[in-house]
Amino acid sequence: MSPYPGELSVPARVLLGPGPSEVHPRVLRAQSAPLVGHLDPFFLDLVNQVKDLLRWVFETENRMTFPVSGTGTAGMESCFANLLEHGDRILVCVNGYFGTRMCDIAVRCGAEVTRIDQEWGKAFEPSAIANALKDNAFKVVSIVHAETSTGVLQPLEEISRLVHDAGSMLLVDTVTSLGGCPVEIDKQNIDATYSGSQKCLSAPPGISPVSFSEMAMDCIRRRKTAVQSFYLDMTLIDKYYGSGRAYHHTAPISSVYGFYEALRLAHEEGLQRRFERHQRNHRALVAGLEAMGLSMHVDASERLWMLNTVQVPEEIDDADLRTQLLTEYGIEIGGGLGDLKGKVMRIGLMGHSSNRRNVTLLLSALSVLLNQRGIKADADTALAAAGEAFES
Amino acid sequence: MSPYPGELSVPARVLLGPGPSEVHPRVLRAQSAPLVGHLDPFFLDLVNQVKDLLRWVFETENRMTFPVSGTGTAGMESCFANLLEHGDRILVCVNGYFGTRMCDIAVRCGAEVTRIDQEWGKAFEPSAIANALKDNAFKVVSIVHAETSTGVLQPLEEISRLVHDAGSMLLVDTVTSLGGCPVEIDKQNIDATYSGSQKCLSAPPGISPVSFSEMAMDCIRRRKTAVQSFYLDMTLIDKYYGSGRAYHHTAPISSVYGFYEALRLAHEEGLQRRFERHQRNHRALVAGLEAMGLSMHVDASERLWMLNTVQVPEEIDDADLRTQLLTEYGIEIGGGLGDLKGKVMRIGLMGHSSNRRNVTLLLSALSVLLNQRGIKADADTALAAAGEAFES
Repeated sequence: MSPYPGELSVPARVLLGPGPSEVHPRVLRAQSAPLVGHLDPFFLDLVNQVKDLLRWVFETENRMTFPVSGTGTAGMESCFANLLEHGDRILVCVNGYFGTRMCDIAVRCGAEVTRIDQEWGKAFEPSAIANALKDNAFKVVSIVHAETSTGVLQPLEEISRLVHDAGSMLLVDTVTSLGGCPVEIDKQNIDATYSGSQKCLSAPPGISPVSFSEMAMDCIRRRKTAVQSFYLDMTLIDKYYGSGRAYHHTAPISSVYGFYEALRLAHEEGLQRRFERHQRNHRALVAGLEAMGLSMHVDASERLWMLNTVQVPEEIDDADLRTQLLTEYGIEIGGGLGDLKGKVMRIGLMGHSSNRRNVTLLLSALSVLLNQRGIKADADTALAAAGEAFES
Repeated sequence: MSPYPGELSVPARVLLGPGPSEVHPRVLRAQSAPLVGHLDPFFLDLVNQVKDLLRWVFETENRMTFPVSGTGTAGMESCFANLLEHGDRILVCVNGYFGTRMCDIAVRCGAEVTRIDQEWGKAFEPSAIANALKDNAFKVVSIVHAETSTGVLQPLEEISRLVHDAGSMLLVDTVTSLGGCPVEIDKQNIDATYSGSQKCLSAPPGISPVSFSEMAMDCIRRRKTAVQSFYLDMTLIDKYYGSGRAYHHTAPISSVYGFYEALRLAHEEGLQRRFERHQRNHRALVAGLEAMGLSMHVDASERLWMLNTVQVPEEIDDADLRTQLLTEYGIEIGGGLGDLKGKVMRIGLMGHSSNRRNVTLLLSALSVLLNQRGIKADADTALAAAGEAFES
């Protein structure tokens, strides 16, 4: 170790990757408030307000809606570990990296996993799920609403009907969708879901909002065996954050402050305006990228507003381009994950990062870097196309 | 939900409970720095510096030393879930609430648990462990170094020798001891340990430092089955925070900023001076409490410096007294946990909270509240006794 660790000196970044997104100064300031204890009446009241705001953004009445003390993967694990016991059957729908991760986690929970696959970059057709449900009874069907690895939005309404008709529960990953497009937990009849603080809610990572339906909570209460994770056991967490206020773990106080402030900002903007903003900036970005000659990886009808996958032109090394974006412009975008490594770049326009300034900057910088690589990418054309979309 | 969630307005608290402890303004300021991505070279370098500082405070050369993205209980779970497979035998030493929790978590990992008990308020004698090791072979022996529920310090040197002579690994809870008294992981030959950010390191909760010896890591690499938690799987985390820098989860960026700053502050103070400060303020507090006529729960030879358990006088209701301390003075202290509920109050002097000002304030406020309840508790005498101890 160096004898004197240096002062923290954070570089300025424009965060246009797959998350974390940029954080509003009010959220950062909230995180600098002094601490209170995790059993302080003030803190437990604050958690109650966070739970109310989460019900609002999830569009649910689910009593069991609250912030897990960990990042999105902890939220994912809490859903699987609470719903599944050894030998339970689950159908996992995989059309990207996070579907694959669902399989991994379900196996670690001792479940019997049936996996169906769809091309990385396409949504599942309801018929594929109907087929899989025909011959088998599953306790749970899990699917990703907004695949951060591919940029695909998965419609859920028809699938939810099929899953419930088959007597199964629906478990949905809303990590990237929550706060950026409608998730409508109750309307879509979703039994369990997990999300992240650092995507379209624009809080720092460290909190994973989850929500469980009464049917899911009944199933958890009727378990024959204990949840394999003490830390993520919903029945214990319910006693801490519920009326019992019994010590379970020491909640991340500062992160909850910041998360509360991020939810307040979302509430001030309103869901509908927030969704429209995400959609508008997405359209402008895509218009600009296409005007520049680049191709999107996902069909227009299935694209996410908050995570855009653009194909890497064959002539270039995207890792090199992304490094240049980061070092010369301070802009972070993401590379492809898993099967899409080297094939796509991932541009996030999430939460506070989704604004006209960032779209304009990124199109301009990309144009310069592509032209340097001998790929004609006209900034004027791109900015004009984006400008039109901003105003539409 | 109220139509307009209110501005975050945190009450000022003096944190003298079992954690979180008070956080230095520099740490709070660090948490308000803007975000970077979790795969940003700047962030991964920062994590490397955190790992170096953790090796320094743990006094270890263990390569696998790093901050788990969760609170202390997540760190506890990560040690048990990685070391234990279904059917593995573990000896758990229980002399307080957190020993009990170890049993619970070990059972959830599928381990065969043998439990030995010691009175809540006393340390284990090495002979008790020697007896338990005589007839059985255990993969792991687990014990709590600083029992936050009782205020007892557990000497480890002789026990460590016995455990290793028996061919077992030693797993130690250092949640409350780290940064407040020597833990000396290498000297004491500890194979796995977990701690918390919010105790004697005085960072906000949300980070759990862990450290694994090479023997422990060998055991993890040789597992026959996957670790039941994906989120806490050390081999995957090693690929993220190690040289691979492969995405595993989105680290809690702001919390890592704050934790780094808290470790820097500890480094500026120096371990020896920090330990002496904790010891001195503890002695002053105890001198004051005893001069006031109160009795400590733990024998002088086994007391922790950072967590003091004082017996509740029979005539009074401690919950009521603690509420009055909180509402009238803004001071948080803790009640008894488990078997000690209603019998002791827990006074933490951890990290930044361990200072002369807080000891003086608490003794004075306690004196007032006890006198109100008809218990003679002279402030002059208490402050004089404390003052002598401060200067000794």
